[in-house]
Amino acid sequence: MTYVASTTAPVNIATLKYWGKRDAKLNLPTNSSISVTLAQEDLRTLTSAATSSEFKEDKLWLNGKEESLSSERTQNCLADLRALRRQLEEKDSSLPPMSQWKLHIVSENNFPTAAGLASSAAGFAALVMAIAKLYELPQSASDISKIARKGSGSACRSLFGGYVAWEMGEKADGSDSKAVEVAPLEHWPNMKAAVLVVSADKKDTPSTSGMQLTVNTSDLFKERITNVVPKRFEAMKKAILDKDFPTFAELTMKDSNSFHATCLDSFPPIFYINDTSKKIIKLCHLINEFYGETIVAYTYDAGPNSVLYYLEENEEKLFAFIYTLFSKVDGWQSKYNSEELSKFTSTFNNQVKGKFQFDLDDTIQENVSRVILTRVGPGPQDTKECLINEETGLPK
Amino acid sequence: MTYVASTTAPVNIATLKYWGKRDAKLNLPTNSSISVTLAQEDLRTLTSAATSSEFKEDKLWLNGKEESLSSERTQNCLADLRALRRQLEEKDSSLPPMSQWKLHIVSENNFPTAAGLASSAAGFAALVMAIAKLYELPQSASDISKIARKGSGSACRSLFGGYVAWEMGEKADGSDSKAVEVAPLEHWPNMKAAVLVVSADKKDTPSTSGMQLTVNTSDLFKERITNVVPKRFEAMKKAILDKDFPTFAELTMKDSNSFHATCLDSFPPIFYINDTSKKIIKLCHLINEFYGETIVAYTYDAGPNSVLYYLEENEEKLFAFIYTLFSKVDGWQSKYNSEELSKFTSTFNNQVKGKFQFDLDDTIQENVSRVILTRVGPGPQDTKECLINEETGLPK
Repeated sequence: MTYVASTTAPVNIATLKYWGKRDAKLNLPTNSSISVTLAQEDLRTLTSAATSSEFKEDKLWLNGKEESLSSERTQNCLADLRALRRQLEEKDSSLPPMSQWKLHIVSENNFPTAAGLASSAAGFAALVMAIAKLYELPQSASDISKIARKGSGSACRSLFGGYVAWEMGEKADGSDSKAVEVAPLEHWPNMKAAVLVVSADKKDTPSTSGMQLTVNTSDLFKERITNVVPKRFEAMKKAILDKDFPTFAELTMKDSNSFHATCLDSFPPIFYINDTSKKIIKLCHLINEFYGETIVAYTYDAGPNSVLYYLEENEEKLFAFIYTLFSKVDGWQSKYNSEELSKFTSTFNNQVKGKFQFDLDDTIQENVSRVILTRVGPGPQDTKECLINEETGLPK
Repeated sequence: MTYVASTTAPVNIATLKYWGKRDAKLNLPTNSSISVTLAQEDLRTLTSAATSSEFKEDKLWLNGKEESLSSERTQNCLADLRALRRQLEEKDSSLPPMSQWKLHIVSENNFPTAAGLASSAAGFAALVMAIAKLYELPQSASDISKIARKGSGSACRSLFGGYVAWEMGEKADGSDSKAVEVAPLEHWPNMKAAVLVVSADKKDTPSTSGMQLTVNTSDLFKERITNVVPKRFEAMKKAILDKDFPTFAELTMKDSNSFHATCLDSFPPIFYINDTSKKIIKLCHLINEFYGETIVAYTYDAGPNSVLYYLEENEEKLFAFIYTLFSKVDGWQSKYNSEELSKFTSTFNNQVKGKFQFDLDDTIQENVSRVILTRVGPGPQDTKECLINEETGLPK
């Protein structure tokens, strides 16, 4: 008999950045971080896990292609999940001895990997959750997040919806380094996100080696993790609880800049944001200045893509600029009809143009390939969709 | 009778950056800095100062155009110089009472302002030196540097040749914030510099307002000035005294990165280096990696231009790369004939190509307009060249 379980897991984009490991093997961070979980209709990983006494080896298929499960990080996740399953089996001998069986895992993203969005967080969260579900583990999401963390640090935050903190913890074994909910989706449901996918010139420094370089060589990094981030962590949690967008936005922008500053202060320096990213940063500051209030925040991970956070009630104001400047890029049609889109243009023409003191740089869209329009969303979801054929144990 | 004096003053490019004022009126810095003075056949300001009882008002002509002398900074310089002259006149009544007369000042750079090289340092150094000479002031170069500092902070370093430190000082009146010689030109004469003039997309944030923004908003800035720079200042002085190029170069590159990191950490962030600057940074690291030793250092001021420092004995090695990549830009012909230039290409083809593990990015030269080839040089020089017509008191 083949047992199967499936789950989806979301992408999360940090507003207080994880950058630096104090333990590279266990993915223990040098600082706590905060993220917003994004809606899964736009960005999610769907993973099915199957186990059977008949399976000969652990196998993984990602987006239709068989991939290796041999990385130490994946092996650590599987070992932890099997150990928890074994505890259950030891207590209840009527349970099938899944901890001894091999696993087949099939995983698919609903967004192109080419988008350059870190899919490893959703990927490891879905992998760990699907197996936890298959094993019927009783552990809390926070406990499961510690296992996902070993796969990819930021994956731990994808175990929750809404607003999530990854508490760095202090213990050497990482048992207190876990994700917790700051506030659920329902607390502040009108948070939206627009991802501007910016073409990268060249491959980035991988984040794992980039982090280690920063930890080892940046003279400013210690100040960031010792003094800057701890204060910002508390202030950002409060801003979320207070639904104080201007404060949340300012902290988000500052933390993105601070993280990229420590990358630039590494030796050799690491550059993730490029001239297009910078133009978008400047545009956001101009938009906030124009309206006399902070209606948009930018944040950048280890790459040039801009993630803009804003509140639903300010969408018209924001998109008057953003749609006008980026109307030629793909992605708008998935959420708006042409009437709605032309309204953004006319808002710009009627309410912005003329009053706006600056020249808009219309070369800004040249290296932007796509806009992904999304919003805050829930955590991993049960799903009846299954990617594994229960007869064969292979991908459907 | 019209009295006239003329002097030249050099450009200096900091290797340990001045960024941040503790007193904006007196140009007192938040940290000490170090620079290399560049040769004046390539980059210098020539200034003639004249005074006469007949002159009706203070006047200034810069590069053929009359300019205002009314800025508070310029007025501070003139007031200090006149006060020192007055002391002389009070001691010796036979001296002409120049301190009461108006000044005519004529100034010319031998390089286009369009090059984007901070000409204010050479400009204020020459202005202050020309008047000091006209007034026959007995003060030392360090004392005169305090006056030039009030005009433009980094101008104080252009009062010396070779390797120069600007000691930040501690006193509120700035009387101990002055330039001093670290080592004369003759100590380490084989230091050369190649300036790659990079086109800027847009006007930079002016450095004075940029500095204040960093001081007021960057969370990482305090660490830079409190802990990072003071150590680096001592280490860089030692590297210069030891003629230890690899250490000097590494400190120079790190300090440039650290300064630009605090700009990025400002809010809103300030960006001086662009994608072309970054490509040149990466190229320098690749060159050093290729040769297995540090033969080149980059540094960036408040703009995208790259200044590369290297030792004369490594020119062939460096230009094998730099000339090959930037052969189309102007400036090579001023120093090398075509035979010498083709030698750089053949060194690249015979000794580098094939062994070099990376792809050279030949788009790197697209936004580079010019190369300025120069070297370490002396301080302000007396000159017989005079820009003022002694009959009319006007520019020649």
